This record gives sequence, structure tokens and C-alpha cells, in this order.
Amino acid sequence: MSKNITKRSEDYSKWYQEVIANSELIDSSPVRGCMVLRPNGFAIWENIKADLDRRFKETDHVNAYFPLLIPQSFLSKEAEHVEGFAKECALVTHHRLRTVIGEDGKPKVEPDPAAKLDEPLVIRPTSETIIWHMYGKWINSHRDLPVLINQWANVMRWEMRTRPFLRTAEFLWQEGHTAHATREEAEEEATRMLQVYKDFCYETLAVPVVTGVKTANERFAGAEDTYTIEAMMQNGWALQSGTSHFLGQNFAKAFDVTYRDQNNEQVHVWATSWGVSTRLIGALIMTHSDDTGLVCPPKVAPIQIVITPIWRNDEQKSVVLDFTDKVHGLLRKHFRVKVDDREGVKPGAKYYEWERKGVPLRLEVGARDVEKNSVFSARRTGGKKQGMVVDENFLHTVENALNEIQQTLLDNAIALRDSKTKTIRTYQELLDGIKDGGFFMAPWKDDSVNEDKIKDQCRATIRCYPTVQDDLDGEVCFYSGEPATHWALFARAY
Amino acid sequence: MSKNITKRSEDYSKWYQEVIANSELIDSSPVRGCMVLRPNGFAIWENIKADLDRRFKETDHVNAYFPLLIPQSFLSKEAEHVEGFAKECALVTHHRLRTVIGEDGKPKVEPDPAAKLDEPLVIRPTSETIIWHMYGKWINSHRDLPVLINQWANVMRWEMRTRPFLRTAEFLWQEGHTAHATREEAEEEATRMLQVYKDFCYETLAVPVVTGVKTANERFAGAEDTYTIEAMMQNGWALQSGTSHFLGQNFAKAFDVTYRDQNNEQVHVWATSWGVSTRLIGALIMTHSDDTGLVCPPKVAPIQIVITPIWRNDEQKSVVLDFTDKVHGLLRKHFRVKVDDREGVKPGAKYYEWERKGVPLRLEVGARDVEKNSVFSARRTGGKKQGMVVDENFLHTVENALNEIQQTLLDNAIALRDSKTKTIRTYQELLDGIKDGGFFMAPWKDDSVNEDKIKDQCRATIRCYPTVQDDLDGEVCFYSGEPATHWALFARAY
Repeated sequence: MSKNITKRSEDYSKWYQEVIANSELIDSSPVRGCMVLRPNGFAIWENIKADLDRRFKETDHVNAYFPLLIPQSFLSKEAEHVEGFAKECALVTHHRLRTVIGEDGKPKVEPDPAAKLDEPLVIRPTSETIIWHMYGKWINSHRDLPVLINQWANVMRWEMRTRPFLRTAEFLWQEGHTAHATREEAEEEATRMLQVYKDFCYETLAVPVVTGVKTANERFAGAEDTYTIEAMMQNGWALQSGTSHFLGQNFAKAFDVTYRDQNNEQVHVWATSWGVSTRLIGALIMTHSDDTGLVCPPKVAPIQIVITPIWRNDEQKSVVLDFTDKVHGLLRKHFRVKVDDREGVKPGAKYYEWERKGVPLRLEVGARDVEKNSVFSARRTGGKKQGMVVDENFLHTVENALNEIQQTLLDNAIALRDSKTKTIRTYQELLDGIKDGGFFMAPWKDDSVNEDKIKDQCRATIRCYPTVQDDLDGEVCFYSGEPATHWALFARAY
Repeated sequence: MSKNITKRSEDYSKWYQEVIANSELIDSSPVRGCMVLRPNGFAIWENIKADLDRRFKETDHVNAYFPLLIPQSFLSKEAEHVEGFAKECALVTHHRLRTVIGEDGKPKVEPDPAAKLDEPLVIRPTSETIIWHMYGKWINSHRDLPVLINQWANVMRWEMRTRPFLRTAEFLWQEGHTAHATREEAEEEATRMLQVYKDFCYETLAVPVVTGVKTANERFAGAEDTYTIEAMMQNGWALQSGTSHFLGQNFAKAFDVTYRDQNNEQVHVWATSWGVSTRLIGALIMTHSDDTGLVCPPKVAPIQIVITPIWRNDEQKSVVLDFTDKVHGLLRKHFRVKVDDREGVKPGAKYYEWERKGVPLRLEVGARDVEKNSVFSARRTGGKKQGMVVDENFLHTVENALNEIQQTLLDNAIALRDSKTKTIRTYQELLDGIKDGGFFMAPWKDDSVNEDKIKDQCRATIRCYPTVQDDLDGEVCFYSGEPATHWALFARAY
């Protein structure tokens, strides 16, 4: 059962795959690039979803559901948008199978030529086009604004190279699509949602993302501005973990969505869209996990606490299991708890298994613990094992332990990020440093051509112009030598 | 804004469409047969989902997510299954669009012939095949059983005639797929989930479904037994509202899923699947709504309570709005509440709007109510308006009112169902009665050919052999005159 996991220092990519396989988060499927989210993996997504959904509703958003399929002509309506998505979309062309006799004499099925669609349909890679078509029907007056809709959905992008959670053909995500009367309101919404994402990553995933704005090269197809949250993985690579777009009036113009303003004139509305996906699970794995296996922040862990009763004989067994039931009963209403009372599996093997699977807190119950009315606790984040008395403060003690584990994960991640973030002023420093990963903050003159050159030369890209910008007074671009326009964050990215 | 809704007695089908349009539950989309679930409609689905998900988890099921796309060859592996679904499935054949110049000289997009898939992929109409492929990887030993997985997903069936909620090309649903060591366990699971559905319909939707088993003609493609919940709509037609299938070993054999039993032999596992969909929203609309518009049971209503402040002058306005805020503050933590303080819309128009939209409870706040520290309450289910004092019992009073509304809806639905359910012993009674709708319980000798004849003659179908069967002693089939094998429930169905 228990397999050794490759060390991170040996092969980070292999380590990542093995952590995932060992914790049974996902499995590969017979469909190229599509993954199966197994119960353990899906449970993390359910917890992410519940937390984000609450934050969206607190900021006055409502959920809706739009069709999976989009007429192919819709994609062309926004010029940059089709450019961005046409090359990787799944196309539905027929609506019926027929049975024919194959060359081997056996019956087989194939698309029925008589059931070809007049217009092929695209499986949504993102839903701006179909949603803006609908907004054209719903928005007429300023009274209809703002529209603040979010959708939880599956989307499909036919990527050539896939990697579990980070880049898959089908993935689960949420996409917010909002419509506003003014540019200012839409810009405010785009930055508000970036902040919601940032707060969520810090507070719930314990992933200390850097926020900023993308350069023109890295913008979403159809956006005027793309804001991003960038996380640092343990190998120093960046993972773009969520984006929020100010779309200007691009989609409103493409789908002719206008409202009558105070001067009684028809004007186009302003838009945003924003999304995060199951990629966030990849972010948390590569932020927190270690050479033993998965480490999952308590706030999203499918199992927060595992209780392992230990006995040596039948007499002990009865006493220990009774006490375990009591402890389980106390905890189950407040936490996600599992009791591992399997027989024939040694305690050490159980500990190792739950460590590999990332359970934050383990409570051991032996005969001597029962006598002392206590349990022995071990944290996935390490440190000495501690006794916990099962008294009136027990729930509080457990809650504190989980909160401390959550905080430890965040502290460690911040420390790692900061230790691997350098301010540089010469290009040579980037060339020397990028091999070992890390975030490089450099004074920079905004220039798409130079940006491409650097990417070609050393695979570093500008992840963003961070929201918090240090003084640029007198700084010159570390690449061109011209006066700098921004502090830019360079890194290698997934 | 306010449109009159056609009376049910005039045109039930038109009434249904207009109730939906007026309550902004859904909108039609540019994709044939696909609907947009607007925020009001989607919120009902969210409430249904949360309630069912809790019931599934209480019965030890876990959620997972499987790919949207299924290789077309998978469908053929189970002979009846492909027969059932091949004729109505959406096929993905290409993975890229290319831009070409159209006849009008303008660029347009089309599937790129160079990006044709080796094997077309089917958008899941249901997921037995892909899931059983995965179960083949996961199940080896009896220790791996049972597998109790549920999936919340979108599915696609290319139906020729569609009707909002009842039959659409894409719809949202849940599909449970379980694997068991023995026939008995699987049969028990199939009936357990039927009971979960029944309890949910009674308790949460206030829809008094009849449970039973389908005849061979109406079985799911690939099932050995299909259990069903059948609801009666107000026009006396039946709506199949959910099904639970005992699949025997059909899919285990098709995908060769075996485990090693106690005799150390490889044996095929036993299966069930069970699902309900957004069709349930159609069921609740046609069970409870009236000529004024939507009536939504409190347990799933997007808005359970609307508060309408009423004032005649600025002095009143300030006092009334303060009191409204107070009432809102008391209720919002416990109920889904909306305050309608729009100016320029008359109270009567507001009342009518919220009635059309199905809000169960309306609280009116006028200057005189504030003086009396009370609100005036009106129930969507009718009856006299009542004052409610805003004292320490207020929350309890409101909760009671919502519970009574929920109970009234169930009582009315049961009364209607029972009044339109007749026991018959001659075929003429069915021919005479079926035009006006209703459930007809008839002694019947199981016979697929006769069943088809009756369907052709009068469009009545056997909805099920109800779980609760009266004594058949001496009864003869109302159609063939031969000894009866079952009491059968005949009805016209959607």
C-alpha cells in the first residue's frame, strides 16, 4: 500500500505527481487531458467552493447557469477573444450516433452523417460570449444595472500539454460576469474581486499570493486590464492562481448591449469577468506539501482530524473504542473527523497513510490515554506530540490546534516566498538566478518586444506589475537602461 | 411590467410557460433546447441541491467528478445502453477552429479539418460507462466495496421536443453510481435511494410522489429494475420525477469489474444508479402554482420573506424604514429575506409582483404597524392577513408561518392527488377518464404488448407498479381479462 514518494530536491515534478497519486486526489481518464476528481480531491474543491461562494454572496453576487454549448459564430464577435480560444476548443458537429458494421464484421457506432448540425457548437472555454448575448436581452435601462452574476461550471480548453490540476482539457471553475453603468464601477468591481481572491488565498488556502496587473502580452483575450494573483510554488516557480478582468466595453459592443443613460442616450455598458479553478488545488499542494506527501490546510481538508484507537487485547479494545466513540461524538458536529479503527493495519502504517493523505491533526487513543481521560495529538506540520485532556475545553483545544496549523502553513509559505524574492537591477542577476526559481523584482520599462526576448532567452516572464509598487524615482530598466515605468515581477511560471 | 397569466383552466401548457417567464426562472438561449437558469431559477436548484446533498452524505455517499466527454466506443459496451442513448447524443469531432474567408468576403470560423479527433467523443447523456471504466481500476478486493459515489453534473440529451425544466437538451442533475459485493446489497441501495427521493419530495418540495417499479417497457437502458417517483401535476398528468436503478451486473460485465470473494474467486460486482434533475423544479411549479403565478415551497424558495415598507410622507418614511431595518436585521440571519423599498412603485404593484414570483410570506410595514410594534403578514397560500408582534417570539412566529405554508402546500397537493386517483376495473373507465387526467389504478396482467396497445389507443402509460400493492385476490386484468399480476398505475405523462 505505502509507496515512497520521490524527494522534492530530486525531482519536483515527479514528487508532485506522486503526492497526488498517493493521496488519491485524482486519476487519469480515458479521455486525453481530462482528469477524474476522486472523492478526496473533489472534497477539497467542495470546501473551496463553499468558502468562495459565501464571499461572492457577501459581495452581492448571485449564481446562474448558462448553456455549455456556444454557437461557433459567437466566438468571432470579439476579435481578440476568438484569437485566444479558437485554437483549443472542442467542437460538437453531430447530434446522433448510428450503428454500422465495421471491417471486423462487428457492429460499431459512428456519427450519423444525416445528423450534422447546421452550425457547429463550441464547448465553452469561458462564457463571455453566450452570457453577453443574454445580457443583451436583459439589460435595457440603468435600473437593470449592475448585473452581478457568477457561474460554477465545467469548461474545456484543448491544451496540448496537460498537468494534473494545473492545466487540463476539462476543468471546474467559477466565472463571474458583471455589467455596470460606468467605467469606474467596472474597474472597482475588477479590483474588488481580486481582493476577494487574495483574502481567500491567504485566509483559507494559506497561500500568500502576490496581486498585480498583467502586461499587454499576458492579458486575457478581450480584456483591457487583467489583474492576477500569483502564488510561489516551493521550487520558486510562479503559478497564476486566479484572474480578474476589466473588459471595458469590448463585449458590450460585440453583442450590442446598451442602456439608456440620464441624457436619454443609448450607451454601451461596462464589463468585468473573473475566475478561479481547480488549479487552486495544485497551488495548495505545491505550497504546503512535503517529502512525506500531501499537506492540506485545515480549512479545506476533506478530513481535518483522524482518530486512531490503539489496543493490545480485547479488554483494552473495548475500553479504547468506547472512549474513541465519545471523542468522535464530541468532535463530529464541529469538524470533519474520521475514525480509523481498521484491524490488521498497524498504528505506524495508519499514521503514515494519513500523513501522506495530508490530514492536519491526528489524535491517538491508547489504553493509558483513556485512563488519563486524554488523547495524544500529532500535527501534520510537525512539532512534539501533545496530550489533550478531554474536558470542557477539549473542543476549544482542538480548534486552537487546527487554527495554529493553518497559521503555521501560512507563516511558512510567507517565509519561503520572501526568502526566494529578490530585488535585482541587472539582467545578469535574472539570468544567474532564474535557474533556481524565485520571484525577481526589477525596475522595468514596459515593452512587449523586450518582454518576449527575455522569455525566449531564459523562460522568465513578467507575472505582474505588483499592486504595491516601491518608489521608482531614478530607477532605470534593468534590461533596456531606459527610465523605468514599473517594478515588474519576473519568474518562471507553470 | 405586470402581465396577466393565462388561467390554468384555459390552457395549462401556456399557463406553465407564462408562470416561468413571469417569475424570471429561466430564459431561452440561442442553442436549440438549452435553457439559461436565471438567478431566481438557479437559486431554487441550489436549495434543492444543498438539501439532497445532505441526505446523500447522511447515507454515507461521497461526491466525485468524472469527465464530461466519453469515447463513443464506450457507449456500445452495454448493448441496451447504446440503444437508449445513441439517437440523442452530442458528438465532439474536432478540437480546433480555423478562420476562413466566407462567400461574403468576410472572415468566418469553421472546424479545422486538420484537427479531427481519432475517435469522436460523446457529451455524457449519463455517466455509467465512464464511471464503470474507472471502477474497473479502483475495485479489486472486497475491501474496496461498497463504492458509494455521487456526481453533480450537467448532461446532454439531444431531445427533439423540449419543454422548460421538463425536457431540455442540457440539464443539471445528480447521478449516484454505486458498486456492491452482493445482489442483495445493491437492491437494498436502489430502494434506499428511492426512499431518500420520496422523503425529499414530501418534506422539502411538498410534492407527494407515488413510488413504484417500472415495467420492462419503461426501464432505464441497461437496468434490471427501475424504481421511480411519480408526481401528479394539477392537470392530472404524471411527471416522472426521479429514478433509481438496480443495474444487476450488466455494467460490471461490460467493463469487466470484478473482485475476489471469500472463495478466492473473481466475481462481478453489483451496481445501482439513481438520479434527479432540474426537472424537479418543473414538478414543484406544476404542483403548487396558481393562476396568479408561481407558488414556491418555503424550504426551497429563493426568497422566503419579502418585507414591503409603506409610507405616505417623509416623516413616515424615516420611521417605517428604521423599523423595516430592525425587522430585516432580526430575520436575515435565519431566513432568506428581501426588502422591497423601491420608490415609484405602488404597494399593490409590489404585492402582485412578489406573488407572481412565488414568495411564500409577505410582511407589510406601515406607520401604524410601527406604532403597534408589529407587521402585517400575508401568505402566498391565501387566508386572512394577520398582524405579527415584533417581540421575543417574533422569529418563532415567522418560522411557524413558513412551516404552516409548507404544510398547507403538501396537504393541498395530497388532496388533489387523491381526488384525481381512481380505482378502475374496466378499460372503458380508462378511456372515458384519461382525457381529464388523473391516476388510474387498475388490476393488470404484466404484458408489454398490451401496454403498447393502450399507449397507442389513449396515450395512457403505466407509470409504475406502486410499492404499496392492495390485495390482488381474484382480480382479473382490466384489459385482457386474465388473472392480474399487479395493481398498475396508469396516467398520461409528460
